[in-house]
Amino acid sequence: MKKEISEPKIVVIGGGTGLAVLLRGLKKYTSDLTAIVTVSDDGGSSGQLRNELGVLPPGDIRNCLVALAETETIMDKVFQHRFTGESSLKGHNLGNLLLVALAEITGDFTSAIREVSRVLAVRGRVIPATLEQVVLGAVMSDGQTIYGETSVREYKRKIEKLFLVPNDCNPLPETLSAIEEADAIVIGPGSLYTSIIPNLLVKGIKEGIADSKATTFYVSNIMTELGETDGFTAADHLRVIQEHIGGQIVDYIIVNSGNIGKLRLNRYEKEQAIPVVINNEDILSLGVNIIEADLVSENDLAWHDSGKLAAAIVKVMGD
Amino acid sequence: MKKEISEPKIVVIGGGTGLAVLLRGLKKYTSDLTAIVTVSDDGGSSGQLRNELGVLPPGDIRNCLVALAETETIMDKVFQHRFTGESSLKGHNLGNLLLVALAEITGDFTSAIREVSRVLAVRGRVIPATLEQVVLGAVMSDGQTIYGETSVREYKRKIEKLFLVPNDCNPLPETLSAIEEADAIVIGPGSLYTSIIPNLLVKGIKEGIADSKATTFYVSNIMTELGETDGFTAADHLRVIQEHIGGQIVDYIIVNSGNIGKLRLNRYEKEQAIPVVINNEDILSLGVNIIEADLVSENDLAWHDSGKLAAAIVKVMGD
Repeated sequence: MKKEISEPKIVVIGGGTGLAVLLRGLKKYTSDLTAIVTVSDDGGSSGQLRNELGVLPPGDIRNCLVALAETETIMDKVFQHRFTGESSLKGHNLGNLLLVALAEITGDFTSAIREVSRVLAVRGRVIPATLEQVVLGAVMSDGQTIYGETSVREYKRKIEKLFLVPNDCNPLPETLSAIEEADAIVIGPGSLYTSIIPNLLVKGIKEGIADSKATTFYVSNIMTELGETDGFTAADHLRVIQEHIGGQIVDYIIVNSGNIGKLRLNRYEKEQAIPVVINNEDILSLGVNIIEADLVSENDLAWHDSGKLAAAIVKVMGD
Repeated sequence: MKKEISEPKIVVIGGGTGLAVLLRGLKKYTSDLTAIVTVSDDGGSSGQLRNELGVLPPGDIRNCLVALAETETIMDKVFQHRFTGESSLKGHNLGNLLLVALAEITGDFTSAIREVSRVLAVRGRVIPATLEQVVLGAVMSDGQTIYGETSVREYKRKIEKLFLVPNDCNPLPETLSAIEEADAIVIGPGSLYTSIIPNLLVKGIKEGIADSKATTFYVSNIMTELGETDGFTAADHLRVIQEHIGGQIVDYIIVNSGNIGKLRLNRYEKEQAIPVVINNEDILSLGVNIIEADLVSENDLAWHDSGKLAAAIVKVMGD
């Protein structure tokens, strides 16, 4: 059964651009990839489509589909094309519009994703965390409750607790079976409160991860994020995840030990973002093992490098 | 050389929905089809995209591409999907947006058409009459000059003379070579002033048709059109074409002899449209032969039937 050995079943959970970076790396190791993607986005093109047409926000799903496209064709470019200029289309990605149109034609969003997956020759599966329209809510450190992902991000207080409205939204059955059968589950990288935790609040997902025999990874962000994780250490990230799922489900945290570079740090200073501090004792006291590796991308942002991140994960799975 | 005999080279010239109807029929007889499509449309989704983004109006080209799609796939539906509801996308066809995005990505409209042709497995070629941004102008019977296709159509006077701005716009080289090599050239069906004649005003096209060895057909409309051809006979249509190209280039006019039906005629009465009167003597006096056939579609509009129209054309070519 060589094929099974060489094709590990990996589930990744998150949203935003971070998840797409991870998928680009992992698709080189396996085609049995399942991406669970948050659908609480309410900004930009996705937010506008969601508000005007009552559809799921397609942006993060679009990014993941393109990341998993097996071959580079003009369709990838078409899918990511963003309209500019002073038109009513301004800011919309054609891929978002294509997903929305397909959802209207086929009658459901999962069929739309399936059709696009076929056209883009996608390696793996992309699944929305829920098909229900959910709004992210947050209780802030001043006691205020704020609704909507964009508003939560912009409200300049510490987030105490996140929740979804409705709070009993259902996952897709294939999400639960993918988690059950997974060899590895990778949470992140991505914005802690707006890309990671919303997935874990969908009914049954945290229980599924807890019950799964999979090795579970959390990929720590390289930098803190203004309005979400100001001053957070890697252990703080883990603690927030534990608080929201009511237990400890992470086997490994993957942290960056590579050099970010002074030039990049200076640029991040304007966004009031600093490198996430890694305190090994704090992490180990939470019952989580640490994988340290140089994960920094060569490009001009302090992002994860697809290849380095995927290699770090696969190395542990092979051990 | 059996293949050449069974694959006649046919060029069709027009715009609007009429041309798409003709193409649907003709593609069953040949794959060597070239559609020359007017680009003076300025209404609806096409007009909005043209005004806001400075692109060619994609609507008529989109309709022709779908008409020539070899296989019925979900991509045809996607391409024709029109957004509804109260959104900024309202009224736009996804196919229009796809053509515009591809034109931006590839840098030119013909490459965009080529890419879409590949995705839709289009049988034949669709070519804009010109790649230049042209505005339709008309001198009306009251001496006024009106600019813009929609305005010309809505101005309730007889049209004396049409022109294009700029008046020296160039066709694509492949248009001229397709006309030169054609076995048959079919003009129409379509709106006389807003779909047919604008093509003939593009530099070199009328001379190309005159010099071509092809059998040339004009497909008469079944009904008159309010604001364009009120009270026009078939001969009147031919005369207007002759006036605008400065000579007689039509070998055959194809007219409908089928029964339109009282119910349909009643519905057209509201639009002040009546069946185009066929006066054989008038037509023959213009030096044009007449093909009479039942061309009426079974659907609820007095449109041409694709199959009947194509059969009438191919029959003459085989004689």
